[in-house]
Parts: sequence; structure tokens; C-alpha cells
Amino acid sequence: MEFRIDSEWFSKAISDVSKAVSMKTPFPILTGIKITAHQDSLMLIGSNSDLIIEKMIPLTIDGEKILEVNQTGSVVLTAKYLSEIVKKLPRGNMHVKADEKQMITLQSDEIVTSLNGFRSEEYPSLPEIDETNHVRISSSEIIDMIKQTAFAVAKNETRPILTGVNLSFEGNRLTCAATNSHRLAVRELPIDSTIKGSFIVPSTSLNELIKLIHNKTDFIHIVVSESYMAFKSDTASLYSRLIEGNYPTVSGLLPKDAKTVITLDTKKLLKGIDRACLFASEWKNNNVYVEIKDGTKIMISSNSSEIGKIEETQPIKSIDGERELSISLDGNFLMDALRAIKEEEIRVSFGGSMKPVLIEPIGNSTCLHLISPVRSY
Amino acid sequence: MEFRIDSEWFSKAISDVSKAVSMKTPFPILTGIKITAHQDSLMLIGSNSDLIIEKMIPLTIDGEKILEVNQTGSVVLTAKYLSEIVKKLPRGNMHVKADEKQMITLQSDEIVTSLNGFRSEEYPSLPEIDETNHVRISSSEIIDMIKQTAFAVAKNETRPILTGVNLSFEGNRLTCAATNSHRLAVRELPIDSTIKGSFIVPSTSLNELIKLIHNKTDFIHIVVSESYMAFKSDTASLYSRLIEGNYPTVSGLLPKDAKTVITLDTKKLLKGIDRACLFASEWKNNNVYVEIKDGTKIMISSNSSEIGKIEETQPIKSIDGERELSISLDGNFLMDALRAIKEEEIRVSFGGSMKPVLIEPIGNSTCLHLISPVRSY
Repeated sequence: MEFRIDSEWFSKAISDVSKAVSMKTPFPILTGIKITAHQDSLMLIGSNSDLIIEKMIPLTIDGEKILEVNQTGSVVLTAKYLSEIVKKLPRGNMHVKADEKQMITLQSDEIVTSLNGFRSEEYPSLPEIDETNHVRISSSEIIDMIKQTAFAVAKNETRPILTGVNLSFEGNRLTCAATNSHRLAVRELPIDSTIKGSFIVPSTSLNELIKLIHNKTDFIHIVVSESYMAFKSDTASLYSRLIEGNYPTVSGLLPKDAKTVITLDTKKLLKGIDRACLFASEWKNNNVYVEIKDGTKIMISSNSSEIGKIEETQPIKSIDGERELSISLDGNFLMDALRAIKEEEIRVSFGGSMKPVLIEPIGNSTCLHLISPVRSY
Repeated sequence: MEFRIDSEWFSKAISDVSKAVSMKTPFPILTGIKITAHQDSLMLIGSNSDLIIEKMIPLTIDGEKILEVNQTGSVVLTAKYLSEIVKKLPRGNMHVKADEKQMITLQSDEIVTSLNGFRSEEYPSLPEIDETNHVRISSSEIIDMIKQTAFAVAKNETRPILTGVNLSFEGNRLTCAATNSHRLAVRELPIDSTIKGSFIVPSTSLNELIKLIHNKTDFIHIVVSESYMAFKSDTASLYSRLIEGNYPTVSGLLPKDAKTVITLDTKKLLKGIDRACLFASEWKNNNVYVEIKDGTKIMISSNSSEIGKIEETQPIKSIDGERELSISLDGNFLMDALRAIKEEEIRVSFGGSMKPVLIEPIGNSTCLHLISPVRSY
């Protein structure tokens, strides 16, 4: 294997696939990145047991020559050292050559680095996925969808299915849902898909996907097998293992009727809850107390006998239903939901002080958040 | 106590004095900030057993009214909560009022916060220092001096005096020195001082001083007592406890003669050592091997049997003395010294492969760095 490459593009690709590489694997070869030089491209792969990231570097980008392959072949190099050394080499052209003992030489100007590699034959192969059924979604929509749901998954692993985001393909609609059983985030997307069924994707994989696709690529193709879902752009692919199990039916969780529906300013509420959480964080559940007064304003408060207390009022923009109400909510859950909403105003529906609160952005019916109350103090 | 204050200036002052506040003190009152409202200013103090930071907020700054004191008095408030809540309140005017039970109310718009305070009488008083003898130094020179020496102190506490920087006032000269017994950094400054003697100041205090004075204030007054050194600007003071003991005599450590003296590019050498350290960091002492070849170039290399090796050559700009030499150095010590040098070129003097290496910036005779070699591989 021998090639010449622009060090910046090489470094960027190494950094992208490194995100799937675990330092703590019992299999030394999985601490490495597999580099394969083809006649017309360089392929890099990083993986752990749940996630595989593949990145392709073509011969030219935007008409500029960035890669020249002198001899095809492949090798596996420890991600940590490869990534650090390529970052520290001067920008410009780099000459990479492997000998028959998996010793790789990287040369830039008068700097010669040698790295011990692994035999690439021992590196696991990519999962095979039938690409007949697939769906094509714009990358910005995929990113939005993940940001609006993935935060709501369960952080602990007592119920593994809840650590994933449920992607449900049904007719012309993709529904994404995440819950930790105390809160729920749902986002719907109209799609044109030949995939059918419901899949649970680890939230960690989806968070890596956001970093990998940025906003740059135009479209992502999703394909799926029994145990993997793959997200593919022109130059990058992410394969995520699926979580086995049956996800709770989301539609059954949504409240049917509301006693009070109010309209509030999203950012202002977020800031108020953030302040109240300062005194609430010392408590179990981060209890923040929310009260509707006279139907004209809400009062947000929290109280810690040791530290002190905070109390603020914010105007209600409009109200329907009962004009007095009080409820205790987990301030952090509330903040997570409010941060995921881009719209300026929200509609908050209360079913009573012990019923879940429904939060929906105004002017966008594709996403919703549901938060269960905590026992009041 | 009652005052109205611009929240931004208040927040900045709280953040400055908080740096001296320890969260892990056995004395609860020391987790607090003492706030004293005088007729014409607000004083804030944060302290731990080694360091005290005092900050003054005047009634007006640049002609703009930022403080109005309605009733003088003082109180102590937990730094953590005070700092977080003031940061999260909307920018603008804030009304602060204490009741007779040390309960403080902070009000901004419709947000009312109450914090439990401590009795200010129990807060320790500032050390008394006779200000007859003092020295006045520009803050930019103080900052340079600290940045060029403080990094070289010992990190472990086996010899406490080596964790401090030695400030020695003699005639019209201030000499600052720091060493961990394997490397030494020295900086001299011409001064006009009535202080005489040698003092050891904890490097941690000096690093806080840099953050406190930034580059903004024009001059710093230094005063000193038996156990404290104080650094004072118009609006801020930092009191540091001194470390007791006799500091080693620096002049005796400097090498008298050199076998080889070469000139190198500072930044280029730093980058080369940084790359070599990647393979050296796995080793004890971060050994980097430096070799002079034919008197025209140096070769920097390091080698790890497990990972690989790196080798690069850099041109020598000029050479005096023997034209062949090799030495092993701690790469991190070398990088620290090179980072502290602003000048483009350095003179490196070698006394032999087992003698300390002297590094001096070209065109600046006020600072020098000395690094002992490590046993070669």
C-alpha cells in the first residue's frame, strides 16, 4: 500500500471514524482504524461492537487533487497515535507507505514517522445490508429529528430499550420517539419510504451521526437489516446495531383532554426554569413549582431550606380552561424539552396537578413533549 | 445593608473573588464571599487559607453610575450560589437588601431571590501589611514574569519551597526564579524598589494573580510582611501567604562554559519536540533524543518499540564549538520553556551530553531556562 494525500483531509477523515473507536476494547485490533487504498479512493473504517463509521476520500474534491494512490492495499493503525501524529504534522502533502510487516511510514518534508500496524485481514467486515428497501431524508431533517428526541432517552440501562430512540416507519410517515418513562419526546416526519416497521436505535449512535453529517451533505439514505440500521451519505456511512425488544406504543401515552391550556414565551420560560433549578438541583427530582395565578401569569418558584429560595412571575399570553393550577415538575426535564424547541412560543396543556404536562411548539404540529409531574412539596 | 447595582459589574467582581474561595474548606464561612457596602463603594472578599482576593466596585465607572448604596453594612454569602444566581439573572439593575437575620434578597424585575447568609463578624480580617516599603511594576511586566517562570515549579509537595516562585529584591533588580530541581526558569526585571529581601510565593497564587489583573490595570503595587505578599491595583488586591524556607541560590546553578552553542527557530523546534513527545510520552521522563549532525542540522527523534518511531531534522542557523553532540531531554520540560519564549530565535548552549542545557531567547538577556538531561537510551 502506498499513497500521497493532503494531510488536512486525511486528518479530518481520521477524526470522523475515530469517534466509533473505543480505547477500552478487549480486542486490540478494534483500537485501530482500517485504511484501504483503492485505485480511485481511500476508505477509512472505525468501529466498536455497536457502531461502525466508514469514510471515503476521493481522488479530487472540488476539482482539487487531494489523493494519489500508488499501490492499493490495506492496513490497520492504532487510532490514537495515527490521529495525534497526523494532526501535529505540517499541513500539506503526506506520503504514506506500508511494508510487508505492517510497518507504516508517514513522511512530510523532513519528518519521518513509523507506526506499527495490525494485519487488516483480522479486522471485522462490514455488516451486509440489503439495500432494496430504503428511505432518503435530508440531512438537516435527520439532525433536527435527533436533536428533538434523543435527549429524552433513559440514561441508565435497567430497561435497555429505553436507551434507544424508536424509529417507526408507517406508510408515508416516520415517527421518532424517546422516553425514560418520566418524559417523552416525539417527532414526526413525512417521508417517501419502502421501509416498514419499528426499530430501536441507540441514542449514542444517533448523537455520533449528528457529528458525522454536520449540515453539509444533502441527503442521507437509510437502510436496515435485522440487527443494523445504516445511514449513508456520498462520502460517509454510519452503521448502528439495533436494540432488540418491543418499544412502548407512543400514541397510548398522550393525554386526551386538558383542563387548562396556556401560551408562553419559550426562551423566557427556559431562563426562568434555569434560575429556579439552581435551588432545586440540591433536591431529588429537581422539583420546580409552577403555579397559574388569576389566569394572567405563571409563578415559577423553588425553595431549599439550606440555601434560600427564588420566585418569579411571567405573563401568560393566552389561556383556555381553568384559571388556577399548581404543579411540581422536574426542572431539568422541562429545560431539555424547551431547549429542543426552536419556535418562539409554546402551548402548554395541563390535565391537573398529578397529570402529565404536554408541551407543543406553536406553528409546528410535528413535535411534542410530555413530562410527568413529581410529588409536590 | 441595601444597595442597587449593575448586575454585570457585580457578576464580574463575584467571579474574580470566587477564585480564592475553596469549596472544600472545613470552615463553612470560608465558602462565602464577604460583601461590604460602604457609602462610596462595594467591597467583595474571597479567601482560603493561602490566598485572599479583594475587589472594589466604585459608584461610577467611566462616568456611568453602576452602584447606589442606600444603607451600609456587610454580609457573607455562599460563593457558589451567589455567583450562579447573579449570572442567570437578566442584565441590568439589581436591588440587594439584607435583613437583620442575614437573609439577603436580590431582586431584578419580577424575579425575587432570597439567600441565607452568614454573620460577617465571623469572617477573618485581612492581614495587616505596613505599606512604607513597596515596589510599583507595570501589570504587563508582572504577567510576563509569572508566565515565564511559574510553570517551572515542582508539582509535588515533597519540598514545599520548590512549589513557589522565588522573588528576590536586590538593589534595582527583581529576580524571579522557579525550579523543580530538574529545570530552572529565571527572569530579571529592573525596578525602583524600597523592598529588600527574598520571598517565596506559591505559584498557585501567582497564577490567580494573572487572571485577576488581565492586562487592563496599569500598575501593581507590591507590599510585603513577614507572612504575606500583597499585589494591589486600583480596584483589586491579592494577598498571598508566603512559603517559609531558604530558596536555593540561583546564580550557582548556571553553567559557566559551553562546548557547543547553536541558534534555532523557537516555534519550529517547539513543533518538532511536540511531535517527538507523542512517542516519548509513554516513557518515563518523556525522553526526546536530540543530536547535532555535521554542525548543520539537528535531528530530533523518539522511539517506542510498541508504537513506532519518529525522526526529523531541522537546520541550525549558526553554530559555535563542537559540531557533533547528542543528548536526551525531557520533551515536556523543553516544550514548557519554548512556550514561555516570545522571541523568534533561541541560543542553546550545551556543556556535554550529561550537562544541563541553557536556553536563552536571542535579543533578550532578562530571561533564561536551564534543563538537565536524562539518561540516554
